[in-house]
Amino acid sequence: MADLPDSARELIESSALAHLVTLNEDGSPQVSIVWVGLEDGEIVCAHLPRNKKVRNIERDGRVALSIETDELNDMGLQQYLVVYGTARITEGGAAELLNRLAQTYLGEGSDFPPMPDPPPGYVTRIEVERVAGVGPWA
Amino acid sequence: MADLPDSARELIESSALAHLVTLNEDGSPQVSIVWVGLEDGEIVCAHLPRNKKVRNIERDGRVALSIETDELNDMGLQQYLVVYGTARITEGGAAELLNRLAQTYLGEGSDFPPMPDPPPGYVTRIEVERVAGVGPWA
Repeated sequence: MADLPDSARELIESSALAHLVTLNEDGSPQVSIVWVGLEDGEIVCAHLPRNKKVRNIERDGRVALSIETDELNDMGLQQYLVVYGTARITEGGAAELLNRLAQTYLGEGSDFPPMPDPPPGYVTRIEVERVAGVGPWA
Repeated sequence: MADLPDSARELIESSALAHLVTLNEDGSPQVSIVWVGLEDGEIVCAHLPRNKKVRNIERDGRVALSIETDELNDMGLQQYLVVYGTARITEGGAAELLNRLAQTYLGEGSDFPPMPDPPPGYVTRIEVERVAGVGPWA
């Protein structure tokens, strides 16, 4: 596993959204935006239903994710982080993780998911292999 | 080709950045952030060097791109656009397109690319096949 530079960790733990890419059965790319955080050195995100990205990752763990920043580089272009890695799915714990991430993404004290009995759901865990993009991490 | 809803066209022509996904030779995803615009109903972006995404698209035209908005949906989650399509590369015209897009992304009167004799470069043209994400377009 590649070590994440502190600058990349900080961005991953911020309220910036992550564009998560998985691979469909025919090899074409699938994208959705997710909340992300860190857990035991891996990037984590949560899903209540067994949606397409969960099924994609179960079949092929190769993923990428990208996160924008508000910082500009020397040329006046916005810096961004890209992470390449291998993901795996674990069952359960989705609502707890979503609630933890909601405190960052929606604000302290947020009640999320907004439903009485959320299903156990799925957690995606991404082992980082390579960091790219434009910024202090690349 | 799928018709782009007006709401999606508007976002693509705004200063919001696009996360462009291409496919590497081994089928894994590659991501970079690009400026995008519209030309003859297709989404266009420009590259001065023959970089990895240009070479990837020449080999496999299946791409995805995602764009964040500042708008929230009913659940307080940020809306975003995902476009799936088939891309092709045409040679030349990159500096002209970058300069046109710079007026939106960097501001009116911007001089971009900041070099005296830019190479002809490459333009990626994406035929839209499907629109997804969270927002009025999905």
